Amino acid sequence: MSKNKLSTEPYKGVRDFYPEDQALLNYIIKTWRDTTERFGYVEYGASILESAELYRSKGADNEEIIRDQSYTFTDRGEREVTLRPEMTPTVARMVAGKRRELGYPLRWYSVPNCFRYERPQRGRLREFWQLNADIFGTRSPAADAEIISLAYEIVRAFGGKPEDFEIRLGSRAYMESVAAELELDDATKNKMLELLDRRNKMPEAEFVKALDELGVPHGRVLGGDTPQDVADVLAVLESLGVPNAKYDPSVVRGFAYYTGVVFEVFDTHPDNNRALFGGGRYDNLTQLFDDEPLPGIGFGMGDVTIRDFLDVRGLLPAYMPATKVYIAVAAPEVATVALQLAGELRGQGVAVAVDFGERKLGDQIKVATKHRVPWLIVVGDNEISSGTFGVKNLDTGATEQKTRAELASFFLNL
Amino acid sequence: MSKNKLSTEPYKGVRDFYPEDQALLNYIIKTWRDTTERFGYVEYGASILESAELYRSKGADNEEIIRDQSYTFTDRGEREVTLRPEMTPTVARMVAGKRRELGYPLRWYSVPNCFRYERPQRGRLREFWQLNADIFGTRSPAADAEIISLAYEIVRAFGGKPEDFEIRLGSRAYMESVAAELELDDATKNKMLELLDRRNKMPEAEFVKALDELGVPHGRVLGGDTPQDVADVLAVLESLGVPNAKYDPSVVRGFAYYTGVVFEVFDTHPDNNRALFGGGRYDNLTQLFDDEPLPGIGFGMGDVTIRDFLDVRGLLPAYMPATKVYIAVAAPEVATVALQLAGELRGQGVAVAVDFGERKLGDQIKVATKHRVPWLIVVGDNEISSGTFGVKNLDTGATEQKTRAELASFFLNL
Repeated sequence: MSKNKLSTEPYKGVRDFYPEDQALLNYIIKTWRDTTERFGYVEYGASILESAELYRSKGADNEEIIRDQSYTFTDRGEREVTLRPEMTPTVARMVAGKRRELGYPLRWYSVPNCFRYERPQRGRLREFWQLNADIFGTRSPAADAEIISLAYEIVRAFGGKPEDFEIRLGSRAYMESVAAELELDDATKNKMLELLDRRNKMPEAEFVKALDELGVPHGRVLGGDTPQDVADVLAVLESLGVPNAKYDPSVVRGFAYYTGVVFEVFDTHPDNNRALFGGGRYDNLTQLFDDEPLPGIGFGMGDVTIRDFLDVRGLLPAYMPATKVYIAVAAPEVATVALQLAGELRGQGVAVAVDFGERKLGDQIKVATKHRVPWLIVVGDNEISSGTFGVKNLDTGATEQKTRAELASFFLNL
Repeated sequence: MSKNKLSTEPYKGVRDFYPEDQALLNYIIKTWRDTTERFGYVEYGASILESAELYRSKGADNEEIIRDQSYTFTDRGEREVTLRPEMTPTVARMVAGKRRELGYPLRWYSVPNCFRYERPQRGRLREFWQLNADIFGTRSPAADAEIISLAYEIVRAFGGKPEDFEIRLGSRAYMESVAAELELDDATKNKMLELLDRRNKMPEAEFVKALDELGVPHGRVLGGDTPQDVADVLAVLESLGVPNAKYDPSVVRGFAYYTGVVFEVFDTHPDNNRALFGGGRYDNLTQLFDDEPLPGIGFGMGDVTIRDFLDVRGLLPAYMPATKVYIAVAAPEVATVALQLAGELRGQGVAVAVDFGERKLGDQIKVATKHRVPWLIVVGDNEISSGTFGVKNLDTGATEQKTRAELASFFLNL
């Protein structure tokens, strides 16, 4: 077996989650879940496998995503399958499938992993996790405001302060009206939207020049009053105490399906000055499946970008394993006694790992420390005969004596 | 848009998780996690995308799985990629990749989704979730016993009684010694193992005849004393109070990588009499990656089979949304006030959904009931001016009056 060894690297552009990485992902997902559920959203889920046609019908941008950036393949039954690159088409499919049984407004969320075949770089990986929160069946601006205030509260729940980020609102409906007024054809309109979407990634002069070349006077899209739909949502946001939302005409979002107010959350940190995530109103998406319109509004928030946001501010939590106690054993013969003691403690809710005594006691304690377990008990003949155990705090080195009966409540009351 | 509508069905053989289905999956995953963490296991994770070669090198059975049952495709960079059909090769890869940094015994668990291209049927789907729990770096029979007692405690944590299932232990090491003694070639040995693995799925007479045809006297593999490795593990299990484990010579497990004690958990219910899940000891798997041996032992437990186990016994939990309170509004104009009230309650930890008042009050209450939210508050001009709100229990219909300040503590102390 010494030749042809396999690589231990993961597939390109995806991540292995060793325990500390997994704990961080779990922290991000738990913060998403807890905050979103407090807003009355219930969780749904779906397979990462979807029929490829689900992504083909949404318009130009998405055709580009499926053509250049999706994982699409043919299965053994000649079906074309795509690993979902985003969740919105899936949730539209599921809502359309039970449209009459669900009640509205319907608040749903999910934490899918999504896949994009792209060059791995900062903030972009081939697999990422994403909170998706959506409301269906309402045209109220209060719903747009709720979705945006949910996004605000999630960043706050991670420890972000209002000055750490900015919520910029734009209006796709207003851009449509501009395009109609200027009598732009669809291709030119899409180029205009695309240009606006990339505004922050190019020099302003170049941006203005490119707009002018499309026949779009830049003052027409960038100046002027706040569109009414954005103003209505901003008014509700103000009454809800969201202090960092404002109108930004260049926010249009990349996906073709948006129809109304759209928004992006920007990181204001000089080392991470970029859009973190965003969303908006899409009122026609379920019409891919049937003729009845059903308005929707939502956003997607990825784990990679929020991790960067937390990282540049020192907001990442310290790693702490679920395991509270490590039982080391003086000899292999007492491993069964250690397992029995562990069973008693587990029965009362304490998370306990046991050593089997194949290595020296000192080495066992090193393993407990390496695994960051905070407490240690050593089981040997003395402890078994006396029924009293030394409980050692592996951070401070301090030890207390406890009887077998006292152990569980000691750990539970820490 | 009325032609060429897309189907709302999911891809063949996978599931949509509407909220009640997702809540059940979450319950299963939470029970897995809580019990496994109490045994001192820490969570890791990995992408579903793996290099196809990871599954090609493990021996005959696995070649069959990858050839006939895997999702394998070529990516845009000409890499052959497989959607993981199981987690064990991945965990072996990850442990081998940081072998010297990890400490042993190492207890790891994960809750991956896995993919197999097979004909969908009871207990088998193309995508399933699976608890994987493994210990690395120990040859102690106490470790085998711990893994099996963890499996036992998980079934108990779901509400299974000891008489609801049976844990059957076999020995791959013993079968290897039989094969050596009978001087079977590898192909015949693999056929013998395969036959043993299918014993419960064929008439006994047919099984005995097929064994005899291979030149394996059935008394040689099925009779005789309990092998020493199984006896050692059974002794520890008895001292840990696991009452339903026994030796069964026909338990060999399907995967080629097992080398020692293997086990299967059988459902004893007449309507679901089948193997639910299993595992065993594999002492050479990390040698795919380097030359140093590192013993491992673990099991995988799928969500589909455990759901069937719970279902036939009426052990599935009732659905209950996280949302505690629904705020209905007398008119769209007070939606902002409702959102403000909701914000106060959420800030104190109560999960609240708000209606935006686009439908009649009666219809709003029907939605709350449909979504199974247990409590209702109606916000109208009277409530706003008096500061007192009727809190209605949607199960019983009973209503209590509460001031704004009393509301949060009322819901938190239910």
